[in-house]
Amino acid sequence: MKILLIGGTGTIGSKVAERLAADHELVVAGHTSGDVQTDITKAEAIQALYKKVGSVDAVTSTTGSAPMQPLDQTTNDHFLEGIKSKMMGQINIALTAMSYLNENGSVTLTSGIMGHDPIPQGAVLSTINNAINGFVIGAYGEFLKKGFRINAVSPALVEDSAETLGDYFPGHSIAAMPDVVNGYVKSLKTNITGQIIDIT
Amino acid sequence: MKILLIGGTGTIGSKVAERLAADHELVVAGHTSGDVQTDITKAEAIQALYKKVGSVDAVTSTTGSAPMQPLDQTTNDHFLEGIKSKMMGQINIALTAMSYLNENGSVTLTSGIMGHDPIPQGAVLSTINNAINGFVIGAYGEFLKKGFRINAVSPALVEDSAETLGDYFPGHSIAAMPDVVNGYVKSLKTNITGQIIDIT
Repeated sequence: MKILLIGGTGTIGSKVAERLAADHELVVAGHTSGDVQTDITKAEAIQALYKKVGSVDAVTSTTGSAPMQPLDQTTNDHFLEGIKSKMMGQINIALTAMSYLNENGSVTLTSGIMGHDPIPQGAVLSTINNAINGFVIGAYGEFLKKGFRINAVSPALVEDSAETLGDYFPGHSIAAMPDVVNGYVKSLKTNITGQIIDIT
Repeated sequence: MKILLIGGTGTIGSKVAERLAADHELVVAGHTSGDVQTDITKAEAIQALYKKVGSVDAVTSTTGSAPMQPLDQTTNDHFLEGIKSKMMGQINIALTAMSYLNENGSVTLTSGIMGHDPIPQGAVLSTINNAINGFVIGAYGEFLKKGFRINAVSPALVEDSAETLGDYFPGHSIAAMPDVVNGYVKSLKTNITGQIIDIT
């Protein structure tokens, strides 16, 4: 199974890579590191990435960011920053995958708990995480017609970010990294589609 | 009660205007018609609209569009079209409202059923409707700190669009216009906040 893991050098992605590397042909894409480089904020860069990597059995995305700040200091530009990166970056990863997936191929994106469990200063991420979930819900039927699947993993605050980000998430329980990685493996290896896989 | 109704000349907005006009000071904003004009795809045009209208007790948005086409013909640009209009148009309406709402003010946005009940060719709208819901969920806590409320009305296929759009929604029941209008009145006149008001 040849898997393109975009964001495979990040907090979550590096743990997904560890689990999958042993028994899969893994191509790790990063912004400046990894086996291949890309800039997910540019649709053409994503197309160039797929052209370089060629056909794959699965694409897993653990990439993208969005800014956090108080809502009354949040502007259109803050939203556009998150839209270009975590939202459209991942949606373009999925759209382009439709031309490069092998039979029974799958796409797994990453959203996050803030879409339904908000925190102060998190409105941009609540918006964008829910947009990614909405894309999965809206797109899975047309993936299915080509024999492809698509899901999103929606993790809570993850263990490996708890030290740096924990203060943003008062009262939130922490998702253990092996459970987070399980979400990606479940999307890859079962037959589910159109699902938001909550990891708490 | 002074209400700014943005999109008040459209299919849903005109029925909301009819209901509210009798006993409220209603300012209807449209793209080319209405009491005042604006272009919701430009954050500066929305700011100019509020500057012209001044402080208000409530803002209701029934505006914005997004393209529909098969997913394998859908590009980054199709998404950006919907993002600029229905998604960021409405989010900018809400962000700017924070500086113009009177005490106990409220904002009501419009999303739609496709966020959780997808139809063929509707992936952009599923994405954008869910983004709007995510914004409401992410933002309501910070609205609350200023004494403001925010909700979204999420209608099914509405009665007045059934003839033109019905073929896109096979097997979908139709929401009666009085029920749709009720959603906006409920958001305006009750004390709920952070809610997605489903109208089926």
